[in-house]
Amino acid sequence: MDKETLYIVKIGGNIIDNPKALNSFLRDFSKLEGLKILVHGGGKKATEIASNLGLKSTMVDGRRVTNKENLDVVTMVYAGLLNKNITALLQQNNCNALGLSGTDANCIQAHKRIVKEIDYGFVGDIDKVNVKTLKLFLENDIVPVFCALTHNKEGQLLNTNADTIASELASELATEFNVVLMYCFEKDGVLEELNNDDSVIENMNTQKYEQLKIEGVITDGMLPKLDNCFNALNKGVTKVIIGNSSIIKIENQKYTTLVV
Amino acid sequence: MDKETLYIVKIGGNIIDNPKALNSFLRDFSKLEGLKILVHGGGKKATEIASNLGLKSTMVDGRRVTNKENLDVVTMVYAGLLNKNITALLQQNNCNALGLSGTDANCIQAHKRIVKEIDYGFVGDIDKVNVKTLKLFLENDIVPVFCALTHNKEGQLLNTNADTIASELASELATEFNVVLMYCFEKDGVLEELNNDDSVIENMNTQKYEQLKIEGVITDGMLPKLDNCFNALNKGVTKVIIGNSSIIKIENQKYTTLVV
Repeated sequence: MDKETLYIVKIGGNIIDNPKALNSFLRDFSKLEGLKILVHGGGKKATEIASNLGLKSTMVDGRRVTNKENLDVVTMVYAGLLNKNITALLQQNNCNALGLSGTDANCIQAHKRIVKEIDYGFVGDIDKVNVKTLKLFLENDIVPVFCALTHNKEGQLLNTNADTIASELASELATEFNVVLMYCFEKDGVLEELNNDDSVIENMNTQKYEQLKIEGVITDGMLPKLDNCFNALNKGVTKVIIGNSSIIKIENQKYTTLVV
Repeated sequence: MDKETLYIVKIGGNIIDNPKALNSFLRDFSKLEGLKILVHGGGKKATEIASNLGLKSTMVDGRRVTNKENLDVVTMVYAGLLNKNITALLQQNNCNALGLSGTDANCIQAHKRIVKEIDYGFVGDIDKVNVKTLKLFLENDIVPVFCALTHNKEGQLLNTNADTIASELASELATEFNVVLMYCFEKDGVLEELNNDDSVIENMNTQKYEQLKIEGVITDGMLPKLDNCFNALNKGVTKVIIGNSSIIKIENQKYTTLVV
């Protein structure tokens, strides 16, 4: 029997920090037919609340160094403020959203990142996705909405990169579903020329990716994102699409499709 | 066929604000056999974070007046900080907890309280409990853990009294389960003499309740709690127990049992 299609969509700060863009995206997401999961980041708001509480946010290579106080803030902002408001807006649009962190129903288990050069603090690297429970939710018309938090099953919450959560969910759920992984970001796709928004690379395979890395076209921020994507493809994800938030609308034509 | 027993346990600030008491309670809760739901408050922490953010918390009759800024704080603290840490601690104890607010999977729908003498702001009065989805969770060994937030299905989160959430869940789920509702608070039960902790009333029916109200034995804080309890009993809840957090342990003998 053919596997059912499952869309896993990741949105980041450019949508979340803009109420109008967020509302519009959530309406489109609600209209996307079939099984779906949303994964959201939310970095800027966490930095803002941390600053209002007199805490400093330290970033290394775009990743948050998470001490106990910062972990409390991301837990409040990601799992509370953002996740519950996003869920409420989806419910308004008749999308039966269920806001989740990795600890909820043990959906995503991780371990605290091993300290090498940098101690990232309470940051998680994913070990296990609870495919059985996510399948139960999906088969009962529930739409999981993940924030960027996991746990270690020993009582510890862990701040975890949202791009990685999306690609790990995609990889693990590929055993059960025909998974289409969509990354929405501020550009229309991966650009051939950094300052030319019209230079979207429409199709990229592993070979092209390696070539663009050598040429220095793919820059810092995109490297882990694309590595995640190709990992997911190698693990059986059907399709990865990268582009602006309108990629979830069928009529959109311009984005980057990755293939292995 | 006999209905299966479902325990609905509500804990308040006296447990949540004390890490040692919370850990101990969550261990006991994890050992409680059978179907169960946890409902938690969390007022003091919300007041503390609000104060750290320079916001004032206004209480009327023990209820929080919730403006937009305060709603953001309770969303962060109840649904984020407290709900996710409680869920992670239960997972550590092999209790398959799923942290929820009323908006998640549309579990509890409410409306913004009608303004009479006092405008409580974004405070919700409950309209509907999603029995079907909660049954799905319970039948799949998932333990719902509710924070004190609901939504109106129009995109608005609403701060909602945790005692009321517990009694409404109990009333609605009584159609499907043999519901035992347990309120854990700082005393060993309802006291006959306010300053005598040994004066626990072991059994109270509607008649006794009315008599104690007339005699002035039942004071302000207990009135809405007990009204909630008797409402639940009138709607088919099997048993209501009020006492300290050890009432969830079978060996405990001292508490107040309510009957109609």
